[in-house]
Amino acid sequence: MSTGTRREVLGIGVGLAASGIMPGLSSPALATTRKIGYAVVGLGSYATRQIMPNFGGCDHARLVALVSGTPSKLEKYGAEYGIPQTHRYSYAQFDRIRDNPDIDVVYVILPNSLHAEYTVRAAQAGKHVLCEKPMASSVAECRTMIAACHKAGTKLMIGYRSRFEPYNRLAIELARGGHVGPTRLITAEHGFPIKPDQWRLDKALSGGGSMMDIGIYSLNAARYLTGEEPVEVSAVESTDRADPRFRSVEDRISFVLRFPSGVQANCISSYSSAHNGYRVIGTQGWIGLEPATPYTGQTMTIRKDGVTAPRTLPPPVRNQFAAQLDHMAECVLTGATPVVAGEEGLADMRVIEAIYRSAAERRTVELTA
Amino acid sequence: MSTGTRREVLGIGVGLAASGIMPGLSSPALATTRKIGYAVVGLGSYATRQIMPNFGGCDHARLVALVSGTPSKLEKYGAEYGIPQTHRYSYAQFDRIRDNPDIDVVYVILPNSLHAEYTVRAAQAGKHVLCEKPMASSVAECRTMIAACHKAGTKLMIGYRSRFEPYNRLAIELARGGHVGPTRLITAEHGFPIKPDQWRLDKALSGGGSMMDIGIYSLNAARYLTGEEPVEVSAVESTDRADPRFRSVEDRISFVLRFPSGVQANCISSYSSAHNGYRVIGTQGWIGLEPATPYTGQTMTIRKDGVTAPRTLPPPVRNQFAAQLDHMAECVLTGATPVVAGEEGLADMRVIEAIYRSAAERRTVELTA
Repeated sequence: MSTGTRREVLGIGVGLAASGIMPGLSSPALATTRKIGYAVVGLGSYATRQIMPNFGGCDHARLVALVSGTPSKLEKYGAEYGIPQTHRYSYAQFDRIRDNPDIDVVYVILPNSLHAEYTVRAAQAGKHVLCEKPMASSVAECRTMIAACHKAGTKLMIGYRSRFEPYNRLAIELARGGHVGPTRLITAEHGFPIKPDQWRLDKALSGGGSMMDIGIYSLNAARYLTGEEPVEVSAVESTDRADPRFRSVEDRISFVLRFPSGVQANCISSYSSAHNGYRVIGTQGWIGLEPATPYTGQTMTIRKDGVTAPRTLPPPVRNQFAAQLDHMAECVLTGATPVVAGEEGLADMRVIEAIYRSAAERRTVELTA
Repeated sequence: MSTGTRREVLGIGVGLAASGIMPGLSSPALATTRKIGYAVVGLGSYATRQIMPNFGGCDHARLVALVSGTPSKLEKYGAEYGIPQTHRYSYAQFDRIRDNPDIDVVYVILPNSLHAEYTVRAAQAGKHVLCEKPMASSVAECRTMIAACHKAGTKLMIGYRSRFEPYNRLAIELARGGHVGPTRLITAEHGFPIKPDQWRLDKALSGGGSMMDIGIYSLNAARYLTGEEPVEVSAVESTDRADPRFRSVEDRISFVLRFPSGVQANCISSYSSAHNGYRVIGTQGWIGLEPATPYTGQTMTIRKDGVTAPRTLPPPVRNQFAAQLDHMAECVLTGATPVVAGEEGLADMRVIEAIYRSAAERRTVELTA
């Protein structure tokens, strides 16, 4: 699974650092000759099982550093991925990444409540940031993160991996292109029965329940399938507070988004039942993905002119994880803005806050531009 | 397509009418010897294509009379079904059904705004009533209809045909029996792109738009799949008033129902896109019907323990239309109360009024018992 030798990790990319070829980037380089170096912050399940193994499939990204509060994890994964002691950091040592020119991008895969802090510190260390979703626990934090990266002149991208997955990309193209006529309604459902005793169930760490974790996939899909921002949110919550899992966070939220074009999206977020799918219903049929956003196995069905049929794509050259890592690397190399920049994370968070408000106040909440 | 000879229509069932075997029924009879006579009121598409042809499949029901404002329809269908001139009525002649002992049940298949009037007049003529859904245009009308039938001692049933359809019956059994664990969420979606220039688009005749016509299937399904009455309704409407179809009635309504058990139902009603399905999501999987409520072709899929598989039933002896007609006949014969009595129609109308109110007032509306 190792993606880089010690030589690769240490030996490249320093020479051009001050060349000025790409002003405003912390580590300018030639796209064809250098892989962008990532530090992964937080060695939990998602980082170690989904992200780190996929640097091996990248064209432009490589893993060069690890940050964890658990020495045994640094030891284990450091050895596995050939990361030298000099490139392994505790959280207390985190700010020293400033002095490591091998690190171009910091990938923040921490509990939600820590996203803002580590994004800001990474930016202050002059590093680009790829941050997992939800971007943070509040709109205010999102704005702080965007401002910090803007001030530092570093890029900020949010880990919306589905935007790099072929079926979701095709669904966007077909939906926005009117393949089944103008979109009238969208249904988007995401959920899973959550296991007890984890940070996601502690509001202080997660910022919220299913909505922040899995419901955000329904919300983000409704936004990327329309390409619009909702103007109205109506949400209903059901949470059994006697269930020990739901002492501080919500279980289920049903929410309806209304978009400027009149499209309505009926969305589900659940921590007590399994859902993974969406459907775009147009005047002439529908485009469905179920499952829509798993790590693998997306399945598309299209109904058009009365005929329902599967739609299959060839396997991608790079999977969604590698494609996401490469996209940020390419942005760093070329100066482009990530397709899912900080503003995208902020846009979701803005709606999430409106969803919570709507459910709490039991009324439709308007979102103004 | 004819289901009865002239002899059958005229010759049977009068002898026992005053025997008192089943007190309180207008036409007591022995279940094994007599078919209950129906008058169909309103000879539109649904009556002539779906209902009248299906008396032929009934064990206990037969078509004995027709009511229409169009003489040519009375002539055409009277001839086709062997209905004598004496058993053909204009609306002006409607009240004379009182004097026709062959008529046990009046099946009201008129525009919604006429349901109440013809139900009340039928009851006053001493006849049982099967009335199409929606039961009426308002809760107030529903109450009037129930009171009229109660006063007359006649039965009142609403045409919820899906309750007589095997896949829907199985779905109810599986959902309420916890086949995929306790229900957590339900999605129910019904809609079709409506053609212009019909009474359903005239609020004075229909009482409302998609919600009254096709959305009621989503609502009714959520209620029969849970066996509960919602305590809370949150609805969002989108209607393009520039579309000539939607000058007086609504197009799309998304509504969320919350039930006492905590189950939430996310429902869709649409007049501008095609939908027909529902899914009951429990803690261990889901039960899906798509399509759920067509005239034929219900398709069931069940996901349980990670396996998704179709579930097929043998063809029913009687289709849903014949089974519905027979059910009312059996109730008349045995004195039983229809499983979908007037109270069922009232329960839906109560929620529909709350849905409209929620959409108009842009807030969650509570429903109290």
